[in-house]
Amino acid sequence: MTSLIPAGREAGLRVAILGTGLIGASLGMSLREVATVAEVIGYDTDAVGLDTALHRGAVDHVAADAADAVADADVVVLAAPPSAIPSVAREIAPHLRDGTVLTDVGSVKADVVAAMEAAVPPGVRVVGGHPMAGSHEHGAAHAAKDMFVGATWLLTPTPRTDADAVQLLNGLLTAIGARVVIVDTAAHDTLVAIVSHLPQLTATTLMSLAAERARRQDARLLLLAGGGFRDATRVAASNPQMWLDICRENREAIVAVLDEYAARIGQLRMMLFEGDEARLTQLLTDAREARRSLPGKETATGQLVELRIPIPDRPGAIAEITTTVSELGVNIEDLGIEHAPDGRGGTMRLAVNGTDAATTAGDALAQRGYTVVERMP
Amino acid sequence: MTSLIPAGREAGLRVAILGTGLIGASLGMSLREVATVAEVIGYDTDAVGLDTALHRGAVDHVAADAADAVADADVVVLAAPPSAIPSVAREIAPHLRDGTVLTDVGSVKADVVAAMEAAVPPGVRVVGGHPMAGSHEHGAAHAAKDMFVGATWLLTPTPRTDADAVQLLNGLLTAIGARVVIVDTAAHDTLVAIVSHLPQLTATTLMSLAAERARRQDARLLLLAGGGFRDATRVAASNPQMWLDICRENREAIVAVLDEYAARIGQLRMMLFEGDEARLTQLLTDAREARRSLPGKETATGQLVELRIPIPDRPGAIAEITTTVSELGVNIEDLGIEHAPDGRGGTMRLAVNGTDAATTAGDALAQRGYTVVERMP
Repeated sequence: MTSLIPAGREAGLRVAILGTGLIGASLGMSLREVATVAEVIGYDTDAVGLDTALHRGAVDHVAADAADAVADADVVVLAAPPSAIPSVAREIAPHLRDGTVLTDVGSVKADVVAAMEAAVPPGVRVVGGHPMAGSHEHGAAHAAKDMFVGATWLLTPTPRTDADAVQLLNGLLTAIGARVVIVDTAAHDTLVAIVSHLPQLTATTLMSLAAERARRQDARLLLLAGGGFRDATRVAASNPQMWLDICRENREAIVAVLDEYAARIGQLRMMLFEGDEARLTQLLTDAREARRSLPGKETATGQLVELRIPIPDRPGAIAEITTTVSELGVNIEDLGIEHAPDGRGGTMRLAVNGTDAATTAGDALAQRGYTVVERMP
Repeated sequence: MTSLIPAGREAGLRVAILGTGLIGASLGMSLREVATVAEVIGYDTDAVGLDTALHRGAVDHVAADAADAVADADVVVLAAPPSAIPSVAREIAPHLRDGTVLTDVGSVKADVVAAMEAAVPPGVRVVGGHPMAGSHEHGAAHAAKDMFVGATWLLTPTPRTDADAVQLLNGLLTAIGARVVIVDTAAHDTLVAIVSHLPQLTATTLMSLAAERARRQDARLLLLAGGGFRDATRVAASNPQMWLDICRENREAIVAVLDEYAARIGQLRMMLFEGDEARLTQLLTDAREARRSLPGKETATGQLVELRIPIPDRPGAIAEITTTVSELGVNIEDLGIEHAPDGRGGTMRLAVNGTDAATTAGDALAQRGYTVVERMP
């Protein structure tokens, strides 16, 4: 049977979501608007949270327990933290019927997917999942039906994974606006260690070093922190508990990536110490090219030109700048504010596409009394 | 004599700027508007650049050579790269008169200030300077008279520095809108190594590691790069030649700071490997507190609340969002755009001061059809 819709479900799929926190409830809200979904059943051990999810329209019905929720489901989503997945999978295993698609939303995959595969009967079709979305809020109260619009949702098949199950999930996730990327389970944890976990830990280390030097040596050090330092340390302000969990769950991959990073820092140190300018130039040049080629706004539409505009610190200035530019029909490709080190005033960065647009926008802003410095990023 | 204005200069100071590139020409434009400055003389070995500076109003007159420029100057600014300062100082030394204040604009200080002090007669008053401003543009054509408004300008005295000379420069720089911070010359190079040079090198290393893994292992890796990775690597796109110069000039301080950073990465690696969650929690928590306490918008005005708004990719949406908020009298404290990994669409981050302002702004945006997710950073 190659049809993706199970027999008897032509009217729509029955989806069970176990865990109706921020991600589970947001997913429920999204899936309830998908034409091929007939029904979303929710369950959570937190009765108050489950009630919130129901009242916010995240689920059609709530189940009395996990077994009840999954008994007749076509798709079961375990929207629980990675550490809770193995026990939940074992708990529901006897109640899953053949052909049910079982997925999760954990940010690490190898151990979690192996645990799900080990826990359930062979007829249950396991596919690991990882939505790269969310916020630092918790709970159904903060759920949003647009949470996954434009977000990347990784699906992580193993050699045992059923291709039709991947296609069924791919269809549902695409319908809620997510962009599905298929990544081998074994590779997943290393990839996220590089693009997500390593930047967090380097930001934490940099911030920690600077803060201790400021305490020990010169409190004014942090007064000198400009845009580069602020960018590089921004994620150091993230939730420690969340990162402790991630470090625990993905320890092996993170340690391996940290070792590679430390080796590169050591090589860089030697280039500097030995004055090996040829290698240093190559490193700086290659990294610059790679950064400028990152998929995204920087290159999607041609050569961006950055306008830098000192802004008066009053309501309305930012709106006036953006409105002035938009009224010319010029699209703002990127923007941001760089604050002065002590937080007073600041400079607006505003990227537009091409030198003509930059000149048009710059002239209009200058006429309104703004100082505009143009630069190619 | 304690008066800061030299005898016979009651009508205003004569300032000579050697090097009329971006920084020198911008400084000239700024100083020409200061009441206590009578005259700005410029000189540059690049005759075309010097001519541009004159025509853009960066100087009152151009000199025939460096000796001519400095002969009767009260203040001489060496606006040349750090590597060129010692030879320029030696060249002009015989032509400087007693009491002249000699300063520079180099981003590293210890060696440069020592070279200036060694080159000139004892009556010349040397004060190292470092404006933390500029752009990646070069040349007088891109100079701007507001370049230093709100920028930090470090002055770096040594035991030999004359206090009146520091005060004279402090007055001029404050008059052009810069915020002067006095930092011991010996400490300066370590401070900038920490807040400026280390973030550049960690960004370069992170970008380089990810790019090589993408080549070797999975090209889709960079598709997964979200806001955290983008922030942490942003400065990796900086000009390699500029950073090669900085690495050469400030090698000793950078190597020492890199060693300390590498030791911290090693400690973090051991915490992860050994599962030392108590120390890891402490590290993550301390770094978070330090990042949130960075002087600046984050704490200057109370608890910021961040609104996250998915934006349609069309001209006008950003202006509509900012205008809607401003029309309520709500000040936008910070803003930025996080692009989806593949560059399509994106989410606007908009920080306002306090939960009341956030609710007001969020409601108004929701009425206009925007989805708003609120979070405390």
